[in-house]
Amino acid sequence: MKLWDKGISIDKKIEKFTVGNDRELDLFLTEYDITASKAHAKMLGKIEILTSDEVELILVELNKLQTQVDDGSFVIEEDFEDVHSKIEFELTKTLGDTGKKIHTARSRNDQVLVAMQLYFKANLSEIYSKTENLIDVLLDLANKHQNKLLPGYTHLQVAMPSSFGLWFSAYAEIMIDDLYLLQAGLKIVDQNPLGSAAGYGSSFPIDREFTTKELGFKTLKYNVVAAQMSRGKCERTVTSNIASLANTLSRFSMDICLYMSQNFDFISFPDELTTGSSIMPHKKNPDVFELIRGKCNKLQAIANEMILITNNLPSGYHRDFQLIKENSIYAVENIKEILDVFIHSIALIKVKDINMQDEKYKYLFTVDSINDLVIQGKSFREAYKDIGGQVENGTYIPAHIKKHTHIGSKDNLALDLIAKKKDL
Amino acid sequence: MKLWDKGISIDKKIEKFTVGNDRELDLFLTEYDITASKAHAKMLGKIEILTSDEVELILVELNKLQTQVDDGSFVIEEDFEDVHSKIEFELTKTLGDTGKKIHTARSRNDQVLVAMQLYFKANLSEIYSKTENLIDVLLDLANKHQNKLLPGYTHLQVAMPSSFGLWFSAYAEIMIDDLYLLQAGLKIVDQNPLGSAAGYGSSFPIDREFTTKELGFKTLKYNVVAAQMSRGKCERTVTSNIASLANTLSRFSMDICLYMSQNFDFISFPDELTTGSSIMPHKKNPDVFELIRGKCNKLQAIANEMILITNNLPSGYHRDFQLIKENSIYAVENIKEILDVFIHSIALIKVKDINMQDEKYKYLFTVDSINDLVIQGKSFREAYKDIGGQVENGTYIPAHIKKHTHIGSKDNLALDLIAKKKDL
Amino acid sequence: MKLWDKGISIDKKIEKFTVGNDRELDLFLTEYDITASKAHAKMLGKIEILTSDEVELILVELNKLQTQVDDGSFVIEEDFEDVHSKIEFELTKTLGDTGKKIHTARSRNDQVLVAMQLYFKANLSEIYSKTENLIDVLLDLANKHQNKLLPGYTHLQVAMPSSFGLWFSAYAEIMIDDLYLLQAGLKIVDQNPLGSAAGYGSSFPIDREFTTKELGFKTLKYNVVAAQMSRGKCERTVTSNIASLANTLSRFSMDICLYMSQNFDFISFPDELTTGSSIMPHKKNPDVFELIRGKCNKLQAIANEMILITNNLPSGYHRDFQLIKENSIYAVENIKEILDVFIHSIALIKVKDINMQDEKYKYLFTVDSINDLVIQGKSFREAYKDIGGQVENGTYIPAHIKKHTHIGSKDNLALDLIAKKKDL
Amino acid sequence: MKLWDKGISIDKKIEKFTVGNDRELDLFLTEYDITASKAHAKMLGKIEILTSDEVELILVELNKLQTQVDDGSFVIEEDFEDVHSKIEFELTKTLGDTGKKIHTARSRNDQVLVAMQLYFKANLSEIYSKTENLIDVLLDLANKHQNKLLPGYTHLQVAMPSSFGLWFSAYAEIMIDDLYLLQAGLKIVDQNPLGSAAGYGSSFPIDREFTTKELGFKTLKYNVVAAQMSRGKCERTVTSNIASLANTLSRFSMDICLYMSQNFDFISFPDELTTGSSIMPHKKNPDVFELIRGKCNKLQAIANEMILITNNLPSGYHRDFQLIKENSIYAVENIKEILDVFIHSIALIKVKDINMQDEKYKYLFTVDSINDLVIQGKSFREAYKDIGGQVENGTYIPAHIKKHTHIGSKDNLALDLIAKKKDL
Repeated sequence: MKLWDKGISIDKKIEKFTVGNDRELDLFLTEYDITASKAHAKMLGKIEILTSDEVELILVELNKLQTQVDDGSFVIEEDFEDVHSKIEFELTKTLGDTGKKIHTARSRNDQVLVAMQLYFKANLSEIYSKTENLIDVLLDLANKHQNKLLPGYTHLQVAMPSSFGLWFSAYAEIMIDDLYLLQAGLKIVDQNPLGSAAGYGSSFPIDREFTTKELGFKTLKYNVVAAQMSRGKCERTVTSNIASLANTLSRFSMDICLYMSQNFDFISFPDELTTGSSIMPHKKNPDVFELIRGKCNKLQAIANEMILITNNLPSGYHRDFQLIKENSIYAVENIKEILDVFIHSIALIKVKDINMQDEKYKYLFTVDSINDLVIQGKSFREAYKDIGGQVENGTYIPAHIKKHTHIGSKDNLALDLIAKKKDL
Repeated sequence: MKLWDKGISIDKKIEKFTVGNDRELDLFLTEYDITASKAHAKMLGKIEILTSDEVELILVELNKLQTQVDDGSFVIEEDFEDVHSKIEFELTKTLGDTGKKIHTARSRNDQVLVAMQLYFKANLSEIYSKTENLIDVLLDLANKHQNKLLPGYTHLQVAMPSSFGLWFSAYAEIMIDDLYLLQAGLKIVDQNPLGSAAGYGSSFPIDREFTTKELGFKTLKYNVVAAQMSRGKCERTVTSNIASLANTLSRFSMDICLYMSQNFDFISFPDELTTGSSIMPHKKNPDVFELIRGKCNKLQAIANEMILITNNLPSGYHRDFQLIKENSIYAVENIKEILDVFIHSIALIKVKDINMQDEKYKYLFTVDSINDLVIQGKSFREAYKDIGGQVENGTYIPAHIKKHTHIGSKDNLALDLIAKKKDL
Repeated sequence: MKLWDKGISIDKKIEKFTVGNDRELDLFLTEYDITASKAHAKMLGKIEILTSDEVELILVELNKLQTQVDDGSFVIEEDFEDVHSKIEFELTKTLGDTGKKIHTARSRNDQVLVAMQLYFKANLSEIYSKTENLIDVLLDLANKHQNKLLPGYTHLQVAMPSSFGLWFSAYAEIMIDDLYLLQAGLKIVDQNPLGSAAGYGSSFPIDREFTTKELGFKTLKYNVVAAQMSRGKCERTVTSNIASLANTLSRFSMDICLYMSQNFDFISFPDELTTGSSIMPHKKNPDVFELIRGKCNKLQAIANEMILITNNLPSGYHRDFQLIKENSIYAVENIKEILDVFIHSIALIKVKDINMQDEKYKYLFTVDSINDLVIQGKSFREAYKDIGGQVENGTYIPAHIKKHTHIGSKDNLALDLIAKKKDL
Repeated sequence: MKLWDKGISIDKKIEKFTVGNDRELDLFLTEYDITASKAHAKMLGKIEILTSDEVELILVELNKLQTQVDDGSFVIEEDFEDVHSKIEFELTKTLGDTGKKIHTARSRNDQVLVAMQLYFKANLSEIYSKTENLIDVLLDLANKHQNKLLPGYTHLQVAMPSSFGLWFSAYAEIMIDDLYLLQAGLKIVDQNPLGSAAGYGSSFPIDREFTTKELGFKTLKYNVVAAQMSRGKCERTVTSNIASLANTLSRFSMDICLYMSQNFDFISFPDELTTGSSIMPHKKNPDVFELIRGKCNKLQAIANEMILITNNLPSGYHRDFQLIKENSIYAVENIKEILDVFIHSIALIKVKDINMQDEKYKYLFTVDSINDLVIQGKSFREAYKDIGGQVENGTYIPAHIKKHTHIGSKDNLALDLIAKKKDL
């Protein structure tokens, strides 16, 4: 059943091609379509296109459908091309002519827009919370392991002393930047698009402030063409924001995979978090973090994919936009799963004792040796040359490891101050 | 001259390959490196690594260099691999041992980080202002042309009536979302990274809150590893934010190019904004908007390029990061030029009178015809079928054009309310 | 059941996360894994690790499994993480110790590699044939409509006369370039990787030339590390080749959508190929071609996604590579469906008669007017200025439409010569 | 001077914006534009639009300009928007009316097309040769170090024994796939586009087979619209082919950077190939290979950028295409430099002796231990479990390192056979 059925049969192959996996994806949107339909029905009552009895009947039916969603019994049968057709069909089946009125002054495009934004709003909030949780877990780990040293690298070459405290809390602090982007995303999706109809508004006197309030949006996208154009914009913004977080998690996972290598041997995870090989019986591979890395890299590709699909299209809806619905739902659902798995797994990390006196780490201390000379009165650049000469001619003897006092350094992690930045 | 010169000659071809175009790019960063060096010197004075006389001497020299920057006489000679080497050289040439002290407790990586963030902060503000200007220009155009009708399209097919008022102000309102992202970007770059040295802090008791205040940063990136990691993060964020704005401008330009086609013929521009053909003497091509479109599409590719360069690299600096300096400066400088050209050009647009009664536009009015039937008591879905039948059998007569009353519609543009959203 | 099961229970959430949709995807690979397993078994027989009886038993069982694949009854139950575990389990269940020998001198990574390449080889051939079909359809359409004129555009501005013959056969000829890339892709996947085991070969005296011949590969990837590295390379190559074809189809679809717009009105399609609107009863939207365009744009994004997932990973297998299996199967299966739909749909195109004398097309003929002057003895550049002047002062009168005689022009399409280029 | 100058002044800012860096880029194309102009002039002579005297005069002048190119004295002054305007101006300045005839029956678009393809053809051949050189260097290194062992990794975890012979020749063999793609690219650019004029052919009886032969193209792009469409297609193809090679080099560089880390310590390079730190005097960083990696990753981003710029544009030239000229020249010039630097640098590699008996490498031999049991009669899967048990309970004793006999294994590198694949 199609909302636009005009009685002309359509080629089956074409139908399969055009409907795609909409039925499957729309299950993520059903509750939001019901919510928006309820607000739309109430608004139609307010402007007297529906009687209050009609509104009441429609709300009762929509609530029944919501109950089906809640208990998992809601299905979109193959007869329907999407959830919107299904719901209008159900209303019409039960309510007859009253059901045929629900689509007054709106379009399916409208419905997708508002359902997507409600979905984004709810899910960005959830992603935000999960990220906050992860930040807390990392700050705890930083606190717990603050005295455990770690070689610091630049160019993958031994550089200067670092610590597990620095390592864990660095990812926590950089993740706070991801929160800031999520906040911007939340602001952008929190503008009611409902009422743009096919993208050019309606000749009915619809009350868009009413639906805005009813749906809990902070404001509305006033201009109906802008509301339509937010399709694409919202998806890209949400996906870009998620990608920024994914980038952080991907990089973290790369560190983890590297540090688990026998050549670093800085950390390990319990056996149940590792996987084996079909041929090498000794293998305890860090697949979980490799998959987090890979999936996060995949998430970083989606915004580009969306731009490729939508750019250079003139304004006004095109069916191409249907394809980015899948991508954005994919991004949202995946990052949630990744965050869950990451939080679960990182908490199980085992931090090893690293022998910083090992020959391969001896040059970690050259900067400290320079600083000793500076304190004795040499200029930095002269001291740099002196120590460089010792390294070159093989006479360098590592300095003792020094306490760092300044804020944000290995011995002054400022974890409380970092935690507070979440609320800036 | 290299800060790390250890007296070993380096292959010329390799040198050219590694230095790349840093000298050229660093001219965009020089003033910020000077500013940051002044703050660093004062801080070294405060913690008594420099005497107040030494600080004073350094500030005088740095101010002289800033004067050279201001009057355009500052150059980075081929002897230097970058601006940082150049400046340390100048200080040492003039001040001797005092100059050799400026690099105490910092690293070049530090310098690049802080200079880039100061550059981003200044430029994102400028981009923000220019975008606000453009929004105002568009709202003015919307106001001026609010009564001029325009066919509205979906799927590039004639859909429903729209207007130039809607068209101009739609882009204004959607651009406000771009402002929200720029705000998040500004927040992210407004965190002082100075003091991370090579990415692992310093054993000197440096005062990072002092330099934060001195440089006018709102807060600091506390964790020194996080500060180092913000290299990459800042570039990607800034570029993604710019890309979002670029996406809006690109789409707008596509509309313009399409509407200038003889087959649409909705708008035109004065001859001086068009270019010709080497072979076809009648051509007045919209190259300006094609180039805006193309350049904006290019800007949308940069974030992806940066991710490709940096992803899957473990934490700690790698030289690869040097390559994204070029990209982000490119993005910043280009979007500023594009905004200038866009503002200049769009103001010259000529809006044509469109004959909405033309046969090809007759179905623009079917939804209004349905609405007439709904008002007469038919349910929407029945009315839809009736009008659909008239279209099918060729009896459809277009309804008269109707006023739309609801907020954000063609006859109720809500321009003031849109303008206010800039300040949300 | 996992090939690497060591008796340690694994967290359920983690298992779901790591297994992903491998079971589903592996159905595309099953027949190829069976084929490769048969070749491997025969080879183990040849080098006397299996007796000829054991080989025989294994082949019988594998053939039974192939029968299940053929009749659609083959399933990978939830107990198995992939098809490889499932098949080894079946062999062991039926054959006991003999089944436990099948994995001698190979690894799962090996199996995925060889199955993927066999899948690519079969499917690239199929894509190649479908593309050849489409080229033939287009050349037929070009032939049929060779005398129908079409305005030619540059910058979306009216430029010079073109024709439907040129338009259809242009896409045919440009698609031949896509064939050349597919040929390169076929060459690259036609190198047997089997025998690399975990990527470092085997201490068994395996006979890789034997399996190469048995599997019908043209040559082998000799170096076992190279064989392993072809994972990633093959996927990227295949996907890039498909993307090139997708680019052609996407652009073609954009033309179609534009030419169907009422403002161009050059072509149409039967109603059964168009879709409607939930609100506008007159709509006959070109969704099929919009979805081809969108899906083809999506296909163009995949190579980038693969690079994002795999780049900067050091050599040797990482689990991240598992994620690009999905992408490449997606690309292959989609392009086949798109080609089918395209061939089916384009054959139904209706070409309209375009009034080239319409006022808006009058400047199509300025170059012909110049040529008239050139033939009369003026230099090209002077003639250009003359006609340009006439256009400027409004005195230009369009030249009569001219025959073009040179090869590849609208009146000399050279369709036979184009067709022959397929075989170059 | 513009070829399309119609006497209307153009805004300066707009001019700067539209001309961009064409003058700079066109220096890469000048010789090819001259070559193509010579062929065009001869052809105009053949069809009697130019007299043989005129042809002669034009050839003389064009040869003079070529001499300027050869001796480096050719410049494109600021008065000219591109090389095409410059050359027509020079011809007209010297030859008067005869110069004004050169542009008969061609367009600037034509000129760019043919010059770009000649440029690509020449440069792809050069890239091809350099890649062959690199392959030879790697095969030599493989041969030289064939007996030096190297731990093999999967998931960055110790896996099975490998060797420097395998490592070097793996990259050689995988690079041969890149040659195959370059061959396809060469085939695609080897089709003469000249004669498409503005993309729709000419009413003059031009002889395109003549220019095809004259320019040494293997065939021609017959259809004039297809010829025009090859703009974009050629650039993308060439860049994709280059990207494939870049991918190989990037991955190789990642290995190199990792293996230079003190935690692996497998290889080193002479000091002159490393760079230092401004703060850490001990640093010998692998910047060369980091920059190769980063630049190669950047090259992999360009095809995507090009698609972003061009996709969803209807057929016919748009100015956006001008922007991909820069990208493709960038890709070509960079990969040549990268190949030079890589060949130069890799030849200087120092391979270290690795202690394969080190405790951290002990599990490299588990598969060999399994194979021992298999040879004694155990089934593979049972043997796997036995050895796995020994690993788990700490009783595992590493097997002695074994010779691998099969083709492509560490002790049977098949370097000759690999070398021969270049000519397949």
